[in-house]
Parts: sequence; C-alpha cells; structure tokens
Amino acid sequence: MNKTTTTDILNALRQVMDPELNRSVVDLNMIRDLSLRDGTVMFTLALTIPECPLRDQLVEDAHAAVQALPGIQDVRVTLGAMTEEERRAVLGGKDQPTLAAGHNQIARVIAVMSGKGGVGKSLVTGLLAAALTRAGHRVGILDADVTGPSIPKLFGVRGPLGGGPLGIEPAISRLGISLMSINFLLQDEEQAVIWRGPLISGAIQQFWGDVHWGRLDELLVDLPPGTSDAALTVMQSLPVNGILMVTTPQELASMVVRKAVKMAQAVNVPILGVIENMAGFTAPDTGHHYDIFGPSHADEVAALAGAPVLARLPIDPHVAALCDAGKIEEVARPELDAVIAALKRL
Amino acid sequence: MNKTTTTDILNALRQVMDPELNRSVVDLNMIRDLSLRDGTVMFTLALTIPECPLRDQLVEDAHAAVQALPGIQDVRVTLGAMTEEERRAVLGGKDQPTLAAGHNQIARVIAVMSGKGGVGKSLVTGLLAAALTRAGHRVGILDADVTGPSIPKLFGVRGPLGGGPLGIEPAISRLGISLMSINFLLQDEEQAVIWRGPLISGAIQQFWGDVHWGRLDELLVDLPPGTSDAALTVMQSLPVNGILMVTTPQELASMVVRKAVKMAQAVNVPILGVIENMAGFTAPDTGHHYDIFGPSHADEVAALAGAPVLARLPIDPHVAALCDAGKIEEVARPELDAVIAALKRL
Repeated sequence: MNKTTTTDILNALRQVMDPELNRSVVDLNMIRDLSLRDGTVMFTLALTIPECPLRDQLVEDAHAAVQALPGIQDVRVTLGAMTEEERRAVLGGKDQPTLAAGHNQIARVIAVMSGKGGVGKSLVTGLLAAALTRAGHRVGILDADVTGPSIPKLFGVRGPLGGGPLGIEPAISRLGISLMSINFLLQDEEQAVIWRGPLISGAIQQFWGDVHWGRLDELLVDLPPGTSDAALTVMQSLPVNGILMVTTPQELASMVVRKAVKMAQAVNVPILGVIENMAGFTAPDTGHHYDIFGPSHADEVAALAGAPVLARLPIDPHVAALCDAGKIEEVARPELDAVIAALKRL
Repeated sequence: MNKTTTTDILNALRQVMDPELNRSVVDLNMIRDLSLRDGTVMFTLALTIPECPLRDQLVEDAHAAVQALPGIQDVRVTLGAMTEEERRAVLGGKDQPTLAAGHNQIARVIAVMSGKGGVGKSLVTGLLAAALTRAGHRVGILDADVTGPSIPKLFGVRGPLGGGPLGIEPAISRLGISLMSINFLLQDEEQAVIWRGPLISGAIQQFWGDVHWGRLDELLVDLPPGTSDAALTVMQSLPVNGILMVTTPQELASMVVRKAVKMAQAVNVPILGVIENMAGFTAPDTGHHYDIFGPSHADEVAALAGAPVLARLPIDPHVAALCDAGKIEEVARPELDAVIAALKRL
C-alpha cells in the first residue's frame, strides 16, 4: 500500500472548494496544524465566518477527500475561524460572501430521472426545455450528471462561465435557456471527473445554491443513472416538485427504471409521468416500422409509478444528428405537449 | 434541519456491514460509548480482532454513514477490540472468519467500462462470457453496477444464493458461468438500492473478496456508468489486468467514453481495446442499412486510448429479444473473436 504523506493530504484537500468563494480550502489558507500519525489525520479548518452556513458541507467534503487516501483510518477536523485580517485578505475587501440562492426565484423544480443510463434523460430534458421556452417560459437546466454530462454538447455551449456579485452566472443557450454543467468548469470537456460521492454531492449543491439562476418558471434537473449520491442529493437537498421518469422499450431497462420509481416513492417525491424514448424506428425510405428494442413496457412502469405515460418518442436519426451538432433547440416534438400541460398544472 | 438523534446514528450504522461476518456492526455489538454533542459524534468501534485487515474499510464506512446525517460536523471513531468472550459469541464458535479470497485463483480480471450509460456494457460482458465459456474457459462475472444491475436478467438467473464454508457461493448460469450481482441478494429484483458511495464500494469489495469464485480463467467486471465510487473501487481495490471500453456511434456518447479513457489512464490501468455497440441497424426485410445513431467515432476513442477497435456490434432486434428473455447465452457473435484473442495474449 502506498504511504500517504501530508503532501498527498494537501493535494486531496485542494479538491475541496469553498462553495461561496469558488477557491480551494488550501488556496484560501483554511487548513491549519495538519498532522498525520499512525493513520490518523488531524487538522483545523479555519472558516471565514464561524457561523458559516456551509460549514457542514465543507467539513464533510474535507473529511471525505482525506479519508479516501490509502491507509487513512481516522480524520479529525477541528473547526476554527480566521482572524478579521485574514478574512479581509481572503474576501478581497468584500464584507460578505455573495449568495446567489437568496436572489433566485424558481417556481418549479423538475427532476428528469430513469435509474438506467443511456435511455435519453438528457435528450428529453433538452427537448422539453426548448419546448417550454418556445411556449414563453423562463427555463434553466441543472446538469446533475457530474461524471457524464451531456447538456453542454446537446446545446453546443461551452465554458468558461463568468462570475458576478450574485454568484456563478449560468451559460445561456441560443434560445435563452440558463445552463449549468460541470463541463463549463473543466479546462477540457473530455477531462474525467474522478470524484467519490461526497464531492459529487457538493458540486450539485453548488449548482443549486451558488448559481445566479434568477427568476425561472422551471428548473429541469438532468439526473445521472443510478440511485446513489447524485439522485439522493437532488431529492434530499433541492425542493423538487416532481419527477419525469424516462424509460425505453427494453424489458431490462424497465426493470432498472422500476427501481428508480421505488426510490422516488421511498423519498416521497411525486412522479408526474413517464416518457418512453427509443419507441421503435421508422425507416425514412420505406416507411416500415421496426420495434428495434422490443415491445413497449411503458404502461407497466406507469402503473407502478401511479402516473400517466405522457409521451412516446421514436428513434429519429435526424434528431440524433442535430443533437450531435449541438442543435437540440432546433428540434420540435409535438409529443411533448402533454408533458408541458402536466407541468402547467403544478 | 431535522435534529439527528443517537437512534438515527445507530440506524445509519446498521447499514455498515462487517464484510467477513455479513452482519451489521450494530447487530454485532461493535458500537460502544456512542455520544453526540454539538454536532460531534464519538464512538468506539470494537473489532473482533485488533489487526482486522478490513478495519480501514469498516471505519470509513461507519464514518461515511454517520457523516451523511443532517447536522453532523465531525465523527470521531476510536478503535477498540472485543474481549475473547465477546469475540467467541460473535463468531459462533468459529476460530477464524471464513475468507473466500484465499481460495480463489483468478488468472485475469477484465473490467468492461464505458463511462456512459446504456451503451451495452452488460450486453458485451454477457456475450463475451458466453463466447469464452464456449472456447473452454472458466469464466465469472462480477456485476459492479449495484444500483442498476443487468446481469441476472440477461442470464435469466435469480437468487437467493447459498453460503458455504468458503463464503458466498455465486449463482451458476446454464453454460456454467459464475455470476455475482446485488440482485441475487434482494428479496425483489425491482427493489431500489439507495446507497451512497461508501456502501456501493463495500458491496463491490464483498463481491470480490467474500465470494467463492474458485479457479477462473477470466473474471469479467461489469462496471456501472460514471467515473465515481464504483469505478474507483474496482480499479483501486481489484487486481484489474485490463479494461475493455465500450462505446456507441453517438458523438455525445464518445465524449463521455473519452472521459472514461482518461480515468483509466489516470489510475494506470491498461485499456485492451474498444468495442463499438449499436453500430447501425440493418432492416431484416429490405436489407437496407441505417446509421441510426450517426457515423462511428470508435476510431477516435481507440486513438485516444492507444488501443485497437476489437469489435463492432450492429443493433439486432433478435439479440434484444433473447436478452429480454434471459437467454443471452444462446447468442453467438463471431465479431467477438478478436476480443477473445486479445484476452488470450494477456
């Protein structure tokens, strides 16, 4: 087993960002009195303000980052506070860190989920956001898929993002949709984000609380596959009004989607409806229809969810080509009208 | 914010399993002197043997389970040991916990990865396992997708599993492939596994160390999407000989797969080759070929990975139907011969 050193520990802590200041706790000189002895790590985390509302998250992130190193058995974090002078140096003269959350007014938070990967959550999220925008709504997308983000590519939008006095400013799509995704923060969109759960959760909480979303009618949250950290954090930390569950005809996919339905029920978030994607393929030359992935199981998923099937989207190579070209906003799918009607009833 | 109580803490710790004894640390009476004061939790973890090789994992899991509760700022775990009497009571007269790991002889561990969900990792894993078995190899599959397991359904195999003196006995498929998946341990295959990262990692480590795999030529590890806990645990805790990277023609998928390639490179696990799935659809009636998901990007992924494209698998509704019926072993795909040849060279 590799021997972990205090340098390794500082490097690990460099991944822990102060969510208000967008700088690492190491760069902010918040780590004091670091020691490592017999697998036990001790340090003091000097906060800018002792009552910092985000301190639990910071401590948890710091804990997790260090605990993940080989040979570490125990991590003991003592909370401390910066002196007034240190604090001013770090905040750069600002008296209070800015908090976007207080300035955001978001009428409805809708999570797009499936449990299964590759069923088209991001496609549905993007198509729906465009349709809602064309219907006159103010819409944002929070890309909660931190290790496999698809939203920037679908919209053909890249970072870096600007920061304003109210927090991180989201990217704006051609149609005017506000977008936040980890890929806007990476130097290279192909860079891997090799983070364990607590850092994933921290990123999602930042995307919610530290982004200046402003006034929105709908914030759509594009969830990653699975029923682990990202989904838990979104459902437990964000005021989700309802879930749209995406499935495909494969029996295998619907089994995993049914797990996601049970998770939503376990954490008491209502399922608004089911959307079936990849519902067969119609050959453009012959007009023949093929059930490429087998017969539909959407009705069974809907019965379990106690919610209606709101839309069925067929496979369309033209849509796939527009998505690959970053032009998802040019696609209009009348099948989604029932979804928009369901959201308006919320 | 909900007020966390010591009862909540014990309930959270009930999720932490001693991987050797397959019982929770609470049931095993390992948690002593639990206190909660001002957001700081302290307790002693009484080990069966002080030198327990799995203690780091236990401490980490216990830490993480408690830290995830609302309002907890610091978790301090002190290590202790049971008395000889307590130890005997817990072990039920056995002098040593059984360890399957010492009896397993696995020649090659191959991870099947993509980063992206729904590209066909499980399909490739299953087809390859069947092809290797037909070629005379002894093969096992470790399903590392704990929140979205597909392997049991593809093979039409269900739990529960038996336990023997050497640990958990894997399920055996019709062809004789040893299978381990979380779904064999659930009462209902649609039950959701709502676990944060440390528990996911713990399950994967159990599937490796506590399952009596016996002698295998290849253990194929079916990874979930993403580059977070499950992938990290497999690459850091299992002796992975190489990775097969699965991709699809979509530009979007290949961007995420390229992230997975960078992760493999970051943790120094060699990529053996790239397999492209969903490489177009040929209509069974007209013979026309359609690039449903756009043109191939497999060569670009292979160039980045520094590994060859070993196979391209077209979409085949007949294969999808057999997979949904639990009969993946009846599918033979000659396209995989090059993959088998590459594994034999290891």
